[in-house]
Amino acid sequence: MPLAEEISAHTLNRLSVYLRCLRQLEEAGIQQTSSQELARLFHLSATQIRKDLTQFGEFGIRGVGYEVTPLKLRIEEVLGLGREHLAVVVGGGNIGTALVRFLNLNSSNNSSNFRIVAVFDNAPAKIGTLLAGLTILPSSELAATVQATGAALGILAVPASAAQENYEQMVAAGIRAILNFAPVRLPNDPRVRVKSVDLLIFLEELAFFLR
Amino acid sequence: MPLAEEISAHTLNRLSVYLRCLRQLEEAGIQQTSSQELARLFHLSATQIRKDLTQFGEFGIRGVGYEVTPLKLRIEEVLGLGREHLAVVVGGGNIGTALVRFLNLNSSNNSSNFRIVAVFDNAPAKIGTLLAGLTILPSSELAATVQATGAALGILAVPASAAQENYEQMVAAGIRAILNFAPVRLPNDPRVRVKSVDLLIFLEELAFFLR
Repeated sequence: MPLAEEISAHTLNRLSVYLRCLRQLEEAGIQQTSSQELARLFHLSATQIRKDLTQFGEFGIRGVGYEVTPLKLRIEEVLGLGREHLAVVVGGGNIGTALVRFLNLNSSNNSSNFRIVAVFDNAPAKIGTLLAGLTILPSSELAATVQATGAALGILAVPASAAQENYEQMVAAGIRAILNFAPVRLPNDPRVRVKSVDLLIFLEELAFFLR
Repeated sequence: MPLAEEISAHTLNRLSVYLRCLRQLEEAGIQQTSSQELARLFHLSATQIRKDLTQFGEFGIRGVGYEVTPLKLRIEEVLGLGREHLAVVVGGGNIGTALVRFLNLNSSNNSSNFRIVAVFDNAPAKIGTLLAGLTILPSSELAATVQATGAALGILAVPASAAQENYEQMVAAGIRAILNFAPVRLPNDPRVRVKSVDLLIFLEELAFFLR
């Protein structure tokens, strides 16, 4: 199997898409599929599917295709999804709330791979209130919570002005991977992997096609 | 200048990042910069910056660098951001609310390139209520609103089960580009450009680095 560093972000992204497709087939009771069928059902490229999956061993049988469940389990293993990942959310605004609800309440979408164990927000009106069953905590409790739960994943959903400070607190607390929604570029730190989601960039990409 | 089809999504994404950096420099009163300075300030690659910008003409002067404002204006032009883009939001939940607030209330982040003109949600409890100054409308008013405002951009922020139906309504109403937050794959339609943001995929990518 290729090392982590040898798999591009785009391949990872596609594997995650295939995984979602395979779960849908499994839920529908379908046991076998093919790159052609996956391509047709989910608007993907059959050639790209075969190329991506070949990286991780030979699953497909020519003329027969793929066994849905074994292929799903193998992709989950490759993606590090064979176990539940615990996450904390920093920022209890709309984005943070959407993620907590999506991950903790919609288990069918999620197959229990990710679970939010705590939400942090320093607004006095929010501290102590409930969000999808979790009590919102002040960020002064971040380090203790990460230590107590073993959460390794953090979601940073605060305004731009508060992002750098909260990022530093998350890294210091031992968070090892951060999904960042604040519209700022965070510094590189060898202790943490950051994935930034800048919603404005997506809109600007679309605007390009409206010229 | 290259045609739309010749610029990759990744180049577009990077141009959008450069634009945000240049706007920050401009706000700070800085009139000249260089690929090295941009790389250092914003954690980018100087080589990649030079390569990307060369595609759109020779802006840089060797040993001097780039003029901030002319380069910013040129990138805005390339990205189709020389004018305001009007958008509608379908789905008044947490994601839809976050986007309306971000785009319509934080004009400093946004430089007024995108403005939400209407929000649609069919929940009886939401219809008629206010969201950042906009009255939430039922989706039966989508087509008339798109026609009246000329909005070409749509943001689809509904649950997966409602995505396909709302997507079809948006395309039929004349929306030409859609930013989709529903965790489903939408069919290709030559009338519309779709960019899907699947938040679970981002988490799965990060989980890979926590193996």
